[in-house]
Amino acid sequence: MENKVVFSVDEAEEIIKGIDFKKMNGLVLVIAQDSKNNKVLMQAFMNKESLMKTLTTGLMHYYSRSRKEIWQKGISSGHVQKVKQILVDCDQDSLLFKVEPIVASCHKGYYSCFFRTIDGTIIEPKVFSPEEVYKEK
Amino acid sequence: MENKVVFSVDEAEEIIKGIDFKKMNGLVLVIAQDSKNNKVLMQAFMNKESLMKTLTTGLMHYYSRSRKEIWQKGISSGHVQKVKQILVDCDQDSLLFKVEPIVASCHKGYYSCFFRTIDGTIIEPKVFSPEEVYKEK
Repeated sequence: MENKVVFSVDEAEEIIKGIDFKKMNGLVLVIAQDSKNNKVLMQAFMNKESLMKTLTTGLMHYYSRSRKEIWQKGISSGHVQKVKQILVDCDQDSLLFKVEPIVASCHKGYYSCFFRTIDGTIIEPKVFSPEEVYKEK
Repeated sequence: MENKVVFSVDEAEEIIKGIDFKKMNGLVLVIAQDSKNNKVLMQAFMNKESLMKTLTTGLMHYYSRSRKEIWQKGISSGHVQKVKQILVDCDQDSLLFKVEPIVASCHKGYYSCFFRTIDGTIIEPKVFSPEEVYKEK
């Protein structure tokens, strides 16, 4: 079942045992990629609890290092990411989630967080207004 | 020039000033993606010096946290990665390199380091024999 993406708590606990959280002090590296066009949307982190929530709900939950808390992608914006496939790397410390993003993934209003070249050219149009979407800010 | 990928030392120094190395204790997160099919090949790290080498040579150079040294991808295997486009994320602490990989990117013999689903199904064939390629091991 290579595309199984939602697991029971028991299954998720067993999967999490095989992931190496030690190298990043309790975190793993996470890449979110659009399952339809393979564009990379964002790079972030998960701890065990956020991985557990992701595996049992099918919706991406990350861990914020600055706020020291779990956050569900899209909880305030509605821009959730639905899990479509989950891959793990050879070292078991990096996870690649193929997802179906709703609207966009970058909090700055772009489809992808990688909307700029390293020398400063913006290569994507804005697709939403952060001021409108994140009204509490 | 959105696809400029090889820079002079002066240009590279200027670019590196805009990258945030603080959050990861002197490192940035790096994703390597095949420029032809958008498949993610690997996730690794760069420090300032390895980013400088990558920007000035057009060939991927990473930083190994375990060996505490810079390594050029493919230096022993010949499986280099040629830089084709460099994107930076909204927080300036994660870099996405679109590359042309020669042969393969995973030291375990697979085209991509992400050759397995999280529940253990191998989804890619081996494309080379690590025992043959890494003869010093």
